[in-house]
Amino acid sequence: MDILKEKILTEGIALSETVLKVDNFLNHQVDPSLMHEIGREFQNRFEEKGITKILTLESSGIAPSVMAGLLMGVPVIFARKRQSLTLTDGLLTSEVYSYTKQEINKVCVAHKFIGEDDTVLIIDDFLANGKAAEALIHLADQAGAEIAGIGIVIEKAFQEGGSALREKGYHVESLARIANLEAGKIEFVKEKEHSNADV
Amino acid sequence: MDILKEKILTEGIALSETVLKVDNFLNHQVDPSLMHEIGREFQNRFEEKGITKILTLESSGIAPSVMAGLLMGVPVIFARKRQSLTLTDGLLTSEVYSYTKQEINKVCVAHKFIGEDDTVLIIDDFLANGKAAEALIHLADQAGAEIAGIGIVIEKAFQEGGSALREKGYHVESLARIANLEAGKIEFVKEKEHSNADV
Repeated sequence: MDILKEKILTEGIALSETVLKVDNFLNHQVDPSLMHEIGREFQNRFEEKGITKILTLESSGIAPSVMAGLLMGVPVIFARKRQSLTLTDGLLTSEVYSYTKQEINKVCVAHKFIGEDDTVLIIDDFLANGKAAEALIHLADQAGAEIAGIGIVIEKAFQEGGSALREKGYHVESLARIANLEAGKIEFVKEKEHSNADV
Repeated sequence: MDILKEKILTEGIALSETVLKVDNFLNHQVDPSLMHEIGREFQNRFEEKGITKILTLESSGIAPSVMAGLLMGVPVIFARKRQSLTLTDGLLTSEVYSYTKQEINKVCVAHKFIGEDDTVLIIDDFLANGKAAEALIHLADQAGAEIAGIGIVIEKAFQEGGSALREKGYHVESLARIANLEAGKIEFVKEKEHSNADV
């Protein structure tokens, strides 16, 4: 997705060989118009799948997910990392280790929002070691829902999460795939999978 | 805002005299199309104000804010409740007590995203005792930004936050104002402030 890659190149910062800072437009300051384009791209890539719900994780997954949900006409559920007084009944839970926050988060969704009749699209901002995606898969599996695919804004393709999920048979679509972040330079994976994918 | 009030009446649950559960469409499962209408309503109410940035708080403020930001053509910044490894430099911080989570959260924004030249619209999902709004005001004040107004999806008008903010001179616009939640019944404040306000 060209405009996303352009944005990453001009505003992203390779903080280290594993950490890409995109707080200018994705996970602290948010560019709503870019999120809308990202939502449209997810719509294009998954529209044949009969999606009934989008499942994401608070907080950075919410903006791209609600735009995708708006365009696809389906509700978005964001899994919670912490329990609230008003979120109590029939919880499905899983656990995820956050590398950037260095802690284990219990994540949960209310069971009433995902069921056996649902075809779920999982969306997240980043895919690196795949732990967050696995937790979301675990939540959807517990609900008996079908997982139609996993839509990722930025995949760190030099980490194992993406290939592990694809090997398990999941349909993973990442809008920008980073090949490496060495020497402060951001390099994308060269690929021609989609008509709108670029180098 | 009629469709929001209708949604609150049909899908909201008065858990107690102070707690309104709206996890069906606002703060766990999200209705993207309703969020878009909410964004449009904020746009209508604040479009004359020369807004340059929307400031909100993760996580439930994000969905209505990105829709408002999309329609108003301005970036959204969501204040973080927990610090990330990638969010380190030049932080403005404040504190907010969350009644529904019963804890004090340190909230922060990167200074580089809000400055003296900004005219900020603060958006949040709920206004009750006003602590979250005050923390966001405190963040914007530290940045030297002008605060154009405060847009709230649901105000618990029986709590003191809204009147305290209005007494201080802030322009507060709440799309649904709850008069009381007694006996499990949701009652709105009767008002005719806006052409689209209803009983």
